Amino acid sequence: MNFSSKLIEGAVQAFATLPGIGRKTALRLVLHLVNKPVEVSEQFAEAILSMRQNIKSCDVCGNLADEPVCGICSDTRRDQGLVCVVESIRDVMAIEDTLQFRGLYHVLGGVISPLEGIGPNDLNIDALVRRAESGSIRELIMAISPTIEGETTIFYLSKLLRGKPVQISTIARGVAFGGELEYADELTLGRSIVTRIPYKMQED
Amino acid sequence: MNFSSKLIEGAVQAFATLPGIGRKTALRLVLHLVNKPVEVSEQFAEAILSMRQNIKSCDVCGNLADEPVCGICSDTRRDQGLVCVVESIRDVMAIEDTLQFRGLYHVLGGVISPLEGIGPNDLNIDALVRRAESGSIRELIMAISPTIEGETTIFYLSKLLRGKPVQISTIARGVAFGGELEYADELTLGRSIVTRIPYKMQED
Repeated sequence: MNFSSKLIEGAVQAFATLPGIGRKTALRLVLHLVNKPVEVSEQFAEAILSMRQNIKSCDVCGNLADEPVCGICSDTRRDQGLVCVVESIRDVMAIEDTLQFRGLYHVLGGVISPLEGIGPNDLNIDALVRRAESGSIRELIMAISPTIEGETTIFYLSKLLRGKPVQISTIARGVAFGGELEYADELTLGRSIVTRIPYKMQED
Repeated sequence: MNFSSKLIEGAVQAFATLPGIGRKTALRLVLHLVNKPVEVSEQFAEAILSMRQNIKSCDVCGNLADEPVCGICSDTRRDQGLVCVVESIRDVMAIEDTLQFRGLYHVLGGVISPLEGIGPNDLNIDALVRRAESGSIRELIMAISPTIEGETTIFYLSKLLRGKPVQISTIARGVAFGGELEYADELTLGRSIVTRIPYKMQED
């Protein structure tokens, strides 16, 4: 595309570096901003800059935070003895959106993946061990994707935490709610039969 | 979505105001920037800000410009007597990309559309009349979409410019190159028969 303007070209290139945004989409976004008052672009740029320059990693759990300790870790109404170990910040958001968990989190920042060159030292594991040793945590729930890398990470962590005063559990795996049996993959279906649970009658 | 961070929330909202970007996509873009060095976000914000604060509308043609007169109008190698009248800046880019036109442009900024409340006074028409009266322009090519609003605009302009020393033409309409006849709409196909042109044998 021929922009006949270095300024437009620069802004299009800036947007096009973002994931999933090509040059055509970038141009549409730039022309949108051109057609709005200059204040709109100023507020947009300020929101991005202020976020990036001030965002912190929570000293306790590794989640994104506005303060040294994140809003979840500093919320005393939450169960401080129950910690959910997750790969990423997105997983924290996904679990928070379920409204089913009122404990704390620990964000590893990834999973062990020799193929991608990610070893235990690249993850937020030392802090997890310290939290487990502190005695304030009763249970660690491994909410990690059931992939080879995820299972490897859970195995590594459970070996590392052996003997620490915490119980380790993993989230339940099985056929998804609302899913039809015939469309479940064989591994999930097979495992869900092996790890079947006693049926509890719903009481009104 | 629960972000547990006002900074992330603000940046997600900023991205989500852009057209075609929802909150999930916005979050993906924000997390991308969080995972990159702070300089990446600074350069991104600077490119947007500098573009929006410094971009101008060309005094001659209404195209976007870095200087008071745009790069196309100030290019003396282009045919200054041939002017293509278009609706928007996107059309300038589309025509430039064809590499088939070496004249100048005039950007109207829209078409006459009573339904949307856009009248002749909302468009860049006065400047077009002045350019046509100046005597430096030989031909005005109306490269306006063949819609009802577009045809109305061409009709209005041709009445307004009657008696001025310029020839008015419109871009050719017909069956698209590479298109199959049976898939052309009836109006286009019918008009392309009425406005047929003499066949010229290709000479080597």
